[in-house]
Amino acid sequence: MNIAIVGSGNIGGALGLHWAKAGHQVMFSGSRNPQKLDALVQKAGAKGSAGSAAEACQFADVVLLAVPWPEVERVLAELEQTLHGKILIDATNPLTTDFIDLAIGFSDSGGEVIARRLPEAHVVKAFNSVGANIIQAESKMFGGIVPTLFYCGNDVAAKQVVAGLIADSGFDPVDVGPIRSSRFLEPLEQLWVEVIKSGIQEEFIISLLRR
Amino acid sequence: MNIAIVGSGNIGGALGLHWAKAGHQVMFSGSRNPQKLDALVQKAGAKGSAGSAAEACQFADVVLLAVPWPEVERVLAELEQTLHGKILIDATNPLTTDFIDLAIGFSDSGGEVIARRLPEAHVVKAFNSVGANIIQAESKMFGGIVPTLFYCGNDVAAKQVVAGLIADSGFDPVDVGPIRSSRFLEPLEQLWVEVIKSGIQEEFIISLLRR
Repeated sequence: MNIAIVGSGNIGGALGLHWAKAGHQVMFSGSRNPQKLDALVQKAGAKGSAGSAAEACQFADVVLLAVPWPEVERVLAELEQTLHGKILIDATNPLTTDFIDLAIGFSDSGGEVIARRLPEAHVVKAFNSVGANIIQAESKMFGGIVPTLFYCGNDVAAKQVVAGLIADSGFDPVDVGPIRSSRFLEPLEQLWVEVIKSGIQEEFIISLLRR
Repeated sequence: MNIAIVGSGNIGGALGLHWAKAGHQVMFSGSRNPQKLDALVQKAGAKGSAGSAAEACQFADVVLLAVPWPEVERVLAELEQTLHGKILIDATNPLTTDFIDLAIGFSDSGGEVIARRLPEAHVVKAFNSVGANIIQAESKMFGGIVPTLFYCGNDVAAKQVVAGLIADSGFDPVDVGPIRSSRFLEPLEQLWVEVIKSGIQEEFIISLLRR
């Protein structure tokens, strides 16, 4: 599968490397720092390349959107034409400019805003509420447990593809319904922030436990 | 410690029994079915009793509020005078009347509404996003893991007390900040609903995993 990383920061860069390792062809884009893109391409080896965001999206079957929320509208306006029929994985959180709160509430969500903005793309919300340290880690295992990665979206076929990519990045994909469930996945990121503030020392993830 | 259970349903009843077993004196109230209260008192043994909600709150140091959201205002209006200086554990979710959505969004939360309504009480949000089946279970362990129970509130001393009660009910208490974090704990209940809808067969809980 050809994958575009739009926003090759801590989250996007790490996911691209996992997916390259899983055998996908990955084009990194959207870092303000060209050296960072070069370093990612080098790490990804034969499966990695770099380009503009538009080039990456033209190349891709699946696009990971991992830019800060204030950049989303600009980026989508630029890329809109290249995203028709593509699967877009939305890893953003609609944070207020002070990063303290979510800018969009229960009557709406960032995921829904993006899905409405791109009616011709298949938007799946995922990877928005897990620490970059966990996404970057080679092994995801917590003891014997493969941790959960929640995702949601309206297109069943697109979600199946994304579930595979979630598994390829080392997580256990759990489908939490339509894109509307972004209203519950976006606050999960804020809960994650509060857990960090609580002073927890270990690496952690918010996951399902099953028995 | 003397504990009032206001709303002795699946959640309130089970927590009361755990706390009685842990050595606390528990008064059950607020079930529409007197036989259900009798059954709880019988199970709780010497540590259990039943009364009106007002009697239970007068008796208690700590009050568990576990009634449906549409009843909250009526219940608080009735009990307000008995709650001065008490610790109130808010286990409610502000659901819309069709139970499909949260009625209060990111500019506010049910926990904050209750805290503003009771400025003389110490409100702690907890137990709002865990399945009754898990709360009822004798053992909370998932494999070797004690699962997380998130709680939040503005009063540090009250939160310490509630953390003890969370541990007494078999969970690992994790402090996620001020009562304002109810904005993130209440959507967690909706996420829980979506996980159930996904068709998961096992018992589950949304927890921290640490490593």
